[in-house]
Amino acid sequence: MSRRLLAALALALIAASLAKAAEVSPVAGYRDLAARILASARGDRFAWERLAELCDTFGPRLSGTPALEAALRWSAAEMKKDGLENVRLEKAMVPRWVRGRESLEIVEPFPSPLAMLGLGMSVATPPSGITAELMVVKGFDELEANADKVKGKIVLFNVEFTQYAETVRYRGAGPSRAARHGAVAMLVRAVGPIGLRTPHTGATRYDEELPKIPAASVAAEDANRLQRLVERGRRVVLKLQMEAQLQGEAESANVIGELRGRELPNEVVLVGGHIDSWDVGTGAMDDGGGVVAAWEALRMLKKLGLRPRRTLRVVGFTNEENGGKGALAYRDAHRAELQDHVLALESDNGAFRLRGFALTGSASAREIASEIVRLLEPIGALELGENGGGADIQPLAQAAAALGSPLPLMSPLVDGSRYFVYHHTPADTVERLDPEEIANLAAGIAVVAFVVADLPLRLGR
Amino acid sequence: MSRRLLAALALALIAASLAKAAEVSPVAGYRDLAARILASARGDRFAWERLAELCDTFGPRLSGTPALEAALRWSAAEMKKDGLENVRLEKAMVPRWVRGRESLEIVEPFPSPLAMLGLGMSVATPPSGITAELMVVKGFDELEANADKVKGKIVLFNVEFTQYAETVRYRGAGPSRAARHGAVAMLVRAVGPIGLRTPHTGATRYDEELPKIPAASVAAEDANRLQRLVERGRRVVLKLQMEAQLQGEAESANVIGELRGRELPNEVVLVGGHIDSWDVGTGAMDDGGGVVAAWEALRMLKKLGLRPRRTLRVVGFTNEENGGKGALAYRDAHRAELQDHVLALESDNGAFRLRGFALTGSASAREIASEIVRLLEPIGALELGENGGGADIQPLAQAAAALGSPLPLMSPLVDGSRYFVYHHTPADTVERLDPEEIANLAAGIAVVAFVVADLPLRLGR
Repeated sequence: MSRRLLAALALALIAASLAKAAEVSPVAGYRDLAARILASARGDRFAWERLAELCDTFGPRLSGTPALEAALRWSAAEMKKDGLENVRLEKAMVPRWVRGRESLEIVEPFPSPLAMLGLGMSVATPPSGITAELMVVKGFDELEANADKVKGKIVLFNVEFTQYAETVRYRGAGPSRAARHGAVAMLVRAVGPIGLRTPHTGATRYDEELPKIPAASVAAEDANRLQRLVERGRRVVLKLQMEAQLQGEAESANVIGELRGRELPNEVVLVGGHIDSWDVGTGAMDDGGGVVAAWEALRMLKKLGLRPRRTLRVVGFTNEENGGKGALAYRDAHRAELQDHVLALESDNGAFRLRGFALTGSASAREIASEIVRLLEPIGALELGENGGGADIQPLAQAAAALGSPLPLMSPLVDGSRYFVYHHTPADTVERLDPEEIANLAAGIAVVAFVVADLPLRLGR
Repeated sequence: MSRRLLAALALALIAASLAKAAEVSPVAGYRDLAARILASARGDRFAWERLAELCDTFGPRLSGTPALEAALRWSAAEMKKDGLENVRLEKAMVPRWVRGRESLEIVEPFPSPLAMLGLGMSVATPPSGITAELMVVKGFDELEANADKVKGKIVLFNVEFTQYAETVRYRGAGPSRAARHGAVAMLVRAVGPIGLRTPHTGATRYDEELPKIPAASVAAEDANRLQRLVERGRRVVLKLQMEAQLQGEAESANVIGELRGRELPNEVVLVGGHIDSWDVGTGAMDDGGGVVAAWEALRMLKKLGLRPRRTLRVVGFTNEENGGKGALAYRDAHRAELQDHVLALESDNGAFRLRGFALTGSASAREIASEIVRLLEPIGALELGENGGGADIQPLAQAAAALGSPLPLMSPLVDGSRYFVYHHTPADTVERLDPEEIANLAAGIAVVAFVVADLPLRLGR
């Protein structure tokens, strides 16, 4: 485009937006209703108690476990009790990765256990373990610069946590990067701020062209201890034992409930989160709280007797953590109604204090969304950010985009300051979430979902 | 005593203390020297680095392990390098308790691992574990009120942490209190503030008249989860497996070094801490930092070329955590010089920011101590508290008291706000301590010990 054309376009856009602002927005008409929804959440512990019951009863809900399947059946039964409609389980085949027993210890200079968690999808060590000399590097560059020393070693990537995207690279790509130069196992410093000797699990990925070596996370304190030992000139020998095994596939499901639309029931506003979790905490933050909040949005609306023009659908996705097969199964089962999805909103950032919502969508969708977040003023959740979305709604969005009909995506913006302290750790329990915050998150989702589902015009694509 | 006599005595004491205050104190003469000692600590990372080397190299130092013995030999060698005198290991026989493998899991309603640590000195379960229904109580009262329901159960004392003395009772006495009514195992909520799913170990005690049942600590989050499950009417079945075993005795030692007194070498000011630790962290806070700070006090004085009138002796006690045999061995080996101990100072409250010192001693000793802490003004450690002492110097004090010659005891007062977060947990690592704080603690101990050892008159008993 020429600069002149761009300038003309910009002027036209500004003019159009000024004209729009002058109109009375249809969204403003929902102010009282939104206030009513938000007020109904005040002092309501229901979502927190439901989350606690889910996490306490079934515990961790890793794909392929009876606990996950029981949690899914329980969720469906509870959705029916809530009065949701079309409650169902939609089948998805998921990987069954089993951690088994695992341990890491210093052999030399002195026997000493280390705090570790095997990475999800890792392969096992031999039953007698892998005993080898340690090599510590602070990143891929240092690894490559010392590639000739890697052979036969256990490589530790001791990378201080900064941003998740920055440091999770070592968890994902570390094993194959180290294996390329002959490492026999890979350790990664826990991807999170320093905790209480807290390792963080999470999935790793193997390059199929390279040997698959066992991979584990070690607590930041242990990574630093190993680094200091090596820097003092000590020869450090470690022993890693892991029984980790991928045991084929298991049947699982997405759990779905609806509030059918009163006028356009075939048009769908999807809200959801994932119900599976890692196997170490009880998955309260990631993502029990998120999926319960999305579900609670529908329960609140039902309880208030509110039924929007279009259908609201809550989806509890399976297998977000180590495969994303629930997201794919949903996409495949709902290909026929791809064009009928008006919005997909995923709540998977921790059910903390709601600050607003993020959106991926057209300019007209952003216009509407910016008006909707203003309705959240009573709970101070006024932000409208970029890049809304989530791992479970991404495949759906990609399929819609491939049809030339991009699906607007949203996700809550929450106070994320503590998220990576608990993420993928044994400390991901209900204590991390606050009854008032999760109730407000649910109410915020309820307002957004209801207004989008009820507006005379569907969200522009 | 009559009231009249008491009043007269009080008046006399006040008069005496006024008279004393008017005198120029001999302690005030140490002001410049104290300032020099305190200044020498500024920016000095030596103590922290020494602590890190101790904790990194040898790791946990539980009684009966090769790591503890190696740490003791290393300490003696390092003391010699520091130029300390009469460096030696003094034999002590210690219990060898071995944790072995251990686990706790929910069997019903759904299999789920719990975060646990067996209590020190606990007995084992049978190899196949103990599987039994859970009973949760919030204290001894609730246990006694439901004594008829205890038989065959695993009893959990879910007591919220308040003060250590308040809640540690359940760790110590819980097993026998529960066993009295037929419990098959005992669990205690971790004795500490809620962490990151962090269990706290520590020694338990069995009543020899009652059956010894396995005993473990569970993380606060798990205790609350179990409580909520039971409150919802769920039947909860747990499986506890512990290999814990007391394997007789092992030879260990206290490690000792001195700065011999220039005039009265037979009179001794003892400073110390314990070098053994629990087997789960690296024992940096409890009590690596404490013993290294006491040791550092002597190294600092040596480096400054300061040699007091009396002898300064640092003792790294063994087996404080599960037996106190180091303390008894020291008392027994030094009975002949009981009367020659002028002061015993134990540093076992965490090497955190120094606030002052606590003293147990005569009024005249308190008078001197109150002047000494004023010398610590440059580091703001001006407090003088009651009840100085420590587990490792208590037997010595009792023996001295039995001779009618009570031994003055001191201990550092430190910022204890984080102490019980890390206490007896895997998170007890060097990250918890700050180089500047440990250096100041060492310098504070150096000032107190030097002045007491150097004053013309020994501390009044």
